[in-house]
Amino acid sequence: MKHTISVLVENKFGVLARIAGLFSARGFNIDSLAVGPTEDPSVSRMTIVSRGDDKTLEQIKKQLNKLIDVIKVVDFKEGEFIDRELVLVRVAVSAKNRKEVLEVIGVSGARVANTGSNSVSIEAAGDEKSTIKLLELLEPFGILEVVRTGRIAMGMDERVLKADGKPEVNE
Amino acid sequence: MKHTISVLVENKFGVLARIAGLFSARGFNIDSLAVGPTEDPSVSRMTIVSRGDDKTLEQIKKQLNKLIDVIKVVDFKEGEFIDRELVLVRVAVSAKNRKEVLEVIGVSGARVANTGSNSVSIEAAGDEKSTIKLLELLEPFGILEVVRTGRIAMGMDERVLKADGKPEVNE
Repeated sequence: MKHTISVLVENKFGVLARIAGLFSARGFNIDSLAVGPTEDPSVSRMTIVSRGDDKTLEQIKKQLNKLIDVIKVVDFKEGEFIDRELVLVRVAVSAKNRKEVLEVIGVSGARVANTGSNSVSIEAAGDEKSTIKLLELLEPFGILEVVRTGRIAMGMDERVLKADGKPEVNE
Repeated sequence: MKHTISVLVENKFGVLARIAGLFSARGFNIDSLAVGPTEDPSVSRMTIVSRGDDKTLEQIKKQLNKLIDVIKVVDFKEGEFIDRELVLVRVAVSAKNRKEVLEVIGVSGARVANTGSNSVSIEAAGDEKSTIKLLELLEPFGILEVVRTGRIAMGMDERVLKADGKPEVNE
């Protein structure tokens, strides 16, 4: 089963390596991982997408919670979060098909990030499905390069997960 | 100095932990890290933003290149790449200021990702500067939660970095 896990951590040396190590030690591959700053500069948030059996994942979550630099772990439940990723795609273009490529970009809600004489770089934000759809639409033109951020997620519940790890109801 | 490093790796257990470990062992903190799939399912691409002296970074790059699962390492040079990140921000809204929040979203090129009765979740793609600008504009309304992907990057040079690690000129 695919899991989307959000981990709030102290922004310190080695935390990322320790957390990634917890997953790999149990044979859990990480499909994607995104780590970025939060509203608190001393705290980072990791969003991990991983696949594996629920029992092993429970063990991993317990171990994560034991790490001193881990503030909070959330295993998002299906349908209770929004997820987004960003993709940069470079596509081959010629004088012949440039217009067609721009049309695909337009209908996909994507944007041109950079243009070269023989290629165009496109940026698009969306969920995994929309990213895959865009890549399918661009495939016939010739995809030269793909860079993806990996998924980030946010609970739809209004009890938010602040950087201090305390859920808070917004009233 | 801030470095943006792109690493193409075999999509295998433990690669991420080993790479993160290389940085932390040398006291290099990782500001952000994004790992996602590429056009080749057996290959992942990591984009790492890290800060530190050039000499130590040279050592890290050498060590990265020695890892068996590392296909290619690129240390992007200032001005030779485009970088983007994605941010999800949840902001408090009331009947009073909802219109004003929507205006900020509109002028920033951001989008509404989800709406609640007391908050709105916003998604925005851009470079680091535009993310910081957006967060500044939203600050007065009350930022409840911030999730960022971390930076991804793509060279502006048309010699692209394919998943097989071989640079290729698009003709």
